[in-house]
Amino acid sequence: MTTGHTAPPGVIDLLGLLAYAELGSFFRLADDAGLAPSLRSKGQLAALAATEQAHYQALHDRLAELGVDPEEAMEPFVAPLDLWHERTEPQSWLESLVKTYVGDGIAGDFYRKVAELADEETRILVEGVMAETGRAEFVAETVRAALEEDPKLAGRLSLWARRLVGEALSQAQAVAVSRPELATLLAGKAPEAREGSDAGIGDLAAVSRMFASLTDRHAGRLKAMGLAE
Amino acid sequence: MTTGHTAPPGVIDLLGLLAYAELGSFFRLADDAGLAPSLRSKGQLAALAATEQAHYQALHDRLAELGVDPEEAMEPFVAPLDLWHERTEPQSWLESLVKTYVGDGIAGDFYRKVAELADEETRILVEGVMAETGRAEFVAETVRAALEEDPKLAGRLSLWARRLVGEALSQAQAVAVSRPELATLLAGKAPEAREGSDAGIGDLAAVSRMFASLTDRHAGRLKAMGLAE
Repeated sequence: MTTGHTAPPGVIDLLGLLAYAELGSFFRLADDAGLAPSLRSKGQLAALAATEQAHYQALHDRLAELGVDPEEAMEPFVAPLDLWHERTEPQSWLESLVKTYVGDGIAGDFYRKVAELADEETRILVEGVMAETGRAEFVAETVRAALEEDPKLAGRLSLWARRLVGEALSQAQAVAVSRPELATLLAGKAPEAREGSDAGIGDLAAVSRMFASLTDRHAGRLKAMGLAE
Repeated sequence: MTTGHTAPPGVIDLLGLLAYAELGSFFRLADDAGLAPSLRSKGQLAALAATEQAHYQALHDRLAELGVDPEEAMEPFVAPLDLWHERTEPQSWLESLVKTYVGDGIAGDFYRKVAELADEETRILVEGVMAETGRAEFVAETVRAALEEDPKLAGRLSLWARRLVGEALSQAQAVAVSRPELATLLAGKAPEAREGSDAGIGDLAAVSRMFASLTDRHAGRLKAMGLAE
């Protein structure tokens, strides 16, 4: 871990995770351009992607301000997040929108955790990012409108959303095992209280509870799009 | 042509052309992520792409303010610009950077033309876009540094730059024939003075002269990157 910063290691991990999540989402969203049904929706997709880039930049710069090499902080999360994207490649415009909404929602849960735990300046940054909710609403509305027009889509998109969160939990579980600081932090303990360098059984159980509450919030997001669990 | 706006038709054409050029560059740049040699350069690439998106958005919104359907204004330029991108797909990170620099340079020439001809508010917008030159400098510096490290690259990259501008001129020629208002405007005549609905021989000759001066400026940009004509 790079020295010279004041944030607890778990917070640096969370910021690195979120930074790469935003950068990865940026490239994947741009990749989905071929699925956009019109020039207008291509433009909307570019705007969504640019928002992810702005968030990436803010997190990247904050990590640098904290004295951390941003690329070093992102590195442990590159493989699991790339793997998530590879395993959940959208086959249609609606699948791409649902993925954006679900992915942003999960990121939001992690942002809230950072806001709870980080220093004042980082907290303000994170709250600024979370305040940009307009785009998520546009996505949910577009999906709802498509479902009203063709209710048969609901079953397939619900399955898709379940697969998205399932693959996310699978990657998150792997990350929790390999990053004990992060597991400790998500379990709600102060990092100083942690003993040894591996996540204990108690930590992993707490992480599972954290995942359970994440799944609950996922259900709320599905409902917002007009989808069932 | 949509009515209700005050800008001359050629200016609407130029704004539509530039809007789609920015949107197309955004998606193509993001597509080049796989060529980036590091996580850091991926981040820089995302920042370049986000700048293109911001320019697209500004032009898109200005077209709407002028009472024009932005997608309708962009439509005539989708095929030629997509064709240019298809015919000039970078095979390396340096080729991608050279393409960005050359493409932005050509766009800059068109922006200057808009600034000359458009209404006050559009001119201010366009000058704001053109003021963002920091990124172009970063690209030119990266290419220069790579050439200093490996001078053998110069020949191949110079050929690449020549192909980029050759393909651009070929597409521009096709656009000039199919869009007489644009040809008239680029030839420097007032649109009111134009007779008939096709570009005359005089217009096309003037367009060729405009292309010649564009090629001159291209040579200057090559030099800035350390490349020969």
